[in-house]
Amino acid sequence: MADKLIIFDTTLRDGEQSPGASMTRDEKLRIARQLERLRVDVIEAGFAASSNGDFEAVQTIANAIRESTICSLSRANDRDISRAAEALKGANSSRIHTFIATSALHMEKKLRMTPEQVLEQAKQSVRFARNLVADVEFSPEDGYRSDMDFLCKVLEVVIQEGATTINVPDTVGYAVPELYGEFIRTLRERIPNSDKAIWSVHCHNDLGMAVANSLAGVKIGGARQVECTINGLGERAGNCSLEEIVMAVKTRKDYFNLEMNIDPVHIVAASRMVSQTTGFVVQPNKAVVGANAFAHASGIHQDGVLKARDTYEIMRAEDVGWSANKIVLGKLSGRNAFKQRLQELGVSLDSEMEINAAFARFKELADRKSEIFDEDILALVSDESITSEKEQYGFVSLSQHSETGERPHASIVITVDGKETHGDSDGNGPVDASLKAIESQVKSGAEMILYSVNAISGSTESQGEVTVRLQNSGRVVNGVGADPDIVVASAKAYLSALNKLHSKADRVAAQG
Amino acid sequence: MADKLIIFDTTLRDGEQSPGASMTRDEKLRIARQLERLRVDVIEAGFAASSNGDFEAVQTIANAIRESTICSLSRANDRDISRAAEALKGANSSRIHTFIATSALHMEKKLRMTPEQVLEQAKQSVRFARNLVADVEFSPEDGYRSDMDFLCKVLEVVIQEGATTINVPDTVGYAVPELYGEFIRTLRERIPNSDKAIWSVHCHNDLGMAVANSLAGVKIGGARQVECTINGLGERAGNCSLEEIVMAVKTRKDYFNLEMNIDPVHIVAASRMVSQTTGFVVQPNKAVVGANAFAHASGIHQDGVLKARDTYEIMRAEDVGWSANKIVLGKLSGRNAFKQRLQELGVSLDSEMEINAAFARFKELADRKSEIFDEDILALVSDESITSEKEQYGFVSLSQHSETGERPHASIVITVDGKETHGDSDGNGPVDASLKAIESQVKSGAEMILYSVNAISGSTESQGEVTVRLQNSGRVVNGVGADPDIVVASAKAYLSALNKLHSKADRVAAQG
Repeated sequence: MADKLIIFDTTLRDGEQSPGASMTRDEKLRIARQLERLRVDVIEAGFAASSNGDFEAVQTIANAIRESTICSLSRANDRDISRAAEALKGANSSRIHTFIATSALHMEKKLRMTPEQVLEQAKQSVRFARNLVADVEFSPEDGYRSDMDFLCKVLEVVIQEGATTINVPDTVGYAVPELYGEFIRTLRERIPNSDKAIWSVHCHNDLGMAVANSLAGVKIGGARQVECTINGLGERAGNCSLEEIVMAVKTRKDYFNLEMNIDPVHIVAASRMVSQTTGFVVQPNKAVVGANAFAHASGIHQDGVLKARDTYEIMRAEDVGWSANKIVLGKLSGRNAFKQRLQELGVSLDSEMEINAAFARFKELADRKSEIFDEDILALVSDESITSEKEQYGFVSLSQHSETGERPHASIVITVDGKETHGDSDGNGPVDASLKAIESQVKSGAEMILYSVNAISGSTESQGEVTVRLQNSGRVVNGVGADPDIVVASAKAYLSALNKLHSKADRVAAQG
Repeated sequence: MADKLIIFDTTLRDGEQSPGASMTRDEKLRIARQLERLRVDVIEAGFAASSNGDFEAVQTIANAIRESTICSLSRANDRDISRAAEALKGANSSRIHTFIATSALHMEKKLRMTPEQVLEQAKQSVRFARNLVADVEFSPEDGYRSDMDFLCKVLEVVIQEGATTINVPDTVGYAVPELYGEFIRTLRERIPNSDKAIWSVHCHNDLGMAVANSLAGVKIGGARQVECTINGLGERAGNCSLEEIVMAVKTRKDYFNLEMNIDPVHIVAASRMVSQTTGFVVQPNKAVVGANAFAHASGIHQDGVLKARDTYEIMRAEDVGWSANKIVLGKLSGRNAFKQRLQELGVSLDSEMEINAAFARFKELADRKSEIFDEDILALVSDESITSEKEQYGFVSLSQHSETGERPHASIVITVDGKETHGDSDGNGPVDASLKAIESQVKSGAEMILYSVNAISGSTESQGEVTVRLQNSGRVVNGVGADPDIVVASAKAYLSALNKLHSKADRVAAQG
């Protein structure tokens, strides 16, 4: 029988560490539900000790998710580990993932510890964690650049102490497939008790090889867990992408001969959800989930593909959740059809009240737009879910005008803490004027570090989805807003970002 | 001495085959100049026989570029090869790249030819090409899925006929590094005259492994040419990305021990130019050229990176052309400063008239915007270069208004063939109304398949850059427009796309 490959998703932890990708607790829960639907084996839900917000996110996810193991990262110290265990209390199945750096460079320059101290701390931490939970993962940070002899000693000791998974990160994305595969193989051969743990790979994409390195760790090295993220989200060039590794293992089953629990039909919905939540676009030529991943250039070739699909296609678009017929609903669709379509799209709203609010927006949109696409619904729901959180600032109405030769002008009415207030401003363009009109009332002083727009379904008739990324006192948040009027969508996105800035707490960051 | 690795860029051929990535002759020439600046060894400039437009693009580039070899693709027949040779006549150094499919699937279902016929046609074509130019590359399409014995026979024969480069495409992106590397090695070992040709790899990214597969072809297989594109542009999930392969070979020189001609400091400018020209965004977590590729999450970690850079960085951002200080010019900057900055950004405008026009726009922008960033200049120039082509449609002025509860409305004045005309329309939003106002005069009937906006430098004070992708009678074009007013930028982008639809000719497409 084929071995099983464990898929460990760290979108909510390592992915969220990307500058600008931070998510609220509710957003994380929504993504965790989608990961459960995907049948991810382990969901790393956060780094509980890093902030109260992260603690609550891990706790909420641990309480809500039943099918996947929920994991929290923690540094190798008792306090972090206790916090992780506490956050995970409600989980059906829980794991503590503790780490400490083992490369000479990191030990000396970052930790300022001797190798002996690092060895001892790793040992004590795993021992401590195993007294709290049965499932303990240990990562030697910057493992791939660590001294082989020292690394063997550390890993042998932590396995003795009961670590059930050993994860070897290529923290800086320096590896090449055959070398990384051999590195894992050597570790497993040299460490006497290596068969007592499941081996795991965690690769970064700085040289564009995270997926290939992970697969070499599996095929050559014998690892049976891969750590990955939706859309390859993650610091710098990101992590190994879940959709690519899953489809590579499936498509090349002849070579890898591994089973996975994953249900790939939810991949595209997961990709969109993560992209819309973080504001990180997916480039059209991204493998598996890019808009062009299954597109063929000319009509003639499309015809060829239809005649003999395998001439140019090695996967089927339907298998990862791309659907051909995207027109789903119109003006006359009822609440049940809407609710059912939400389910098919993998969106679960938390209450009937949320469904009603989303349906009211849907009807409002259907009055203005004849064909409603899946993307419209996802945008509408993502907008809905964001604004359903407790709001400091709310949108009421906007009037704006621009004319060649004159300076664009906007008037806006918003609510601040429930009270209506009116602002006026000019600006370089109507969007700039509208946001300045908001700022004239709010005076947040936040700096805008990203502004981007995507029309949800190709044409300007559709809703525009705007992402605004604001920075204030070291905190970075994304706001998303959707509306057929791009200026209104921008104002909504700006207010949504301000609401997040208002509610978000600081925290400690980790590397991995 | 280290071997040399030849970098063969096919952004203008395989990259351009992405649905929606088609470029005009002038755009191709501008990118070719940037590739020359990057010191790419071989530029595949197009597929001369596929259309008159492609022929002219190859010819223009062959006449203009001196430092790189210019290559044209051609099917394996005398007519295609003659057209390629004709287009390349003015080149300093030229190459013909001819191909025919060799996999059972493609021969039977696409070509409807027997293996004997394919072998004979490959032989005759290479012989014919060698009579026209000294430098001939041969590709067995879908080579990686071809029968090894048959492939050996074909490649031995074409080397006998004088093919100087043998390129083995993984046309459908099915390979895994170690298997692809072994495949190339086996070919080189089994083919008796294999040492008479340079071996080349051409990998697609459907499973996210194009870069790793290419490197395995080089390291394990002994290939000494890599075919790649800027940003990994290309059909479906794209090709091996130039920036990743180049930086992997440089960063891991300890392992690959290869020399390249490439000057990586022009990589970021090349990436932006290709992205702006095609409207294909680069995702923030894209290796090397993504906005986050060198970004670190928190202030604390940034500090750590500054203290001991190599703890988390294996490459330096400056080395690939990211510059820290991006504020470059303001209202008081003169024409010389502007011209010099253009040169530093790798932009060469073709005439003094073009520089003057761009400078006029720069001054106009500086009146409205206090800090002008590199991105603003690139947007302004890219807008300039597009509109400097002969225009059927021109922008004159726009007035638009939207107000909550009312239907957005726009009035526009444009020129059609030099004559002013005025259009009015309402729409779902001000952008939709403006484009409908244009369409009310132009009546192109084109379908919009993409609409996207990026604020050039993060904030809405900056210019918005809009990409509009239109489709009409099977042709797909991109228009780009930049303006601090997003509605005006949208109208300009739409007119630019209409101008391209007006001038663009049909052509044959190729796979590779």
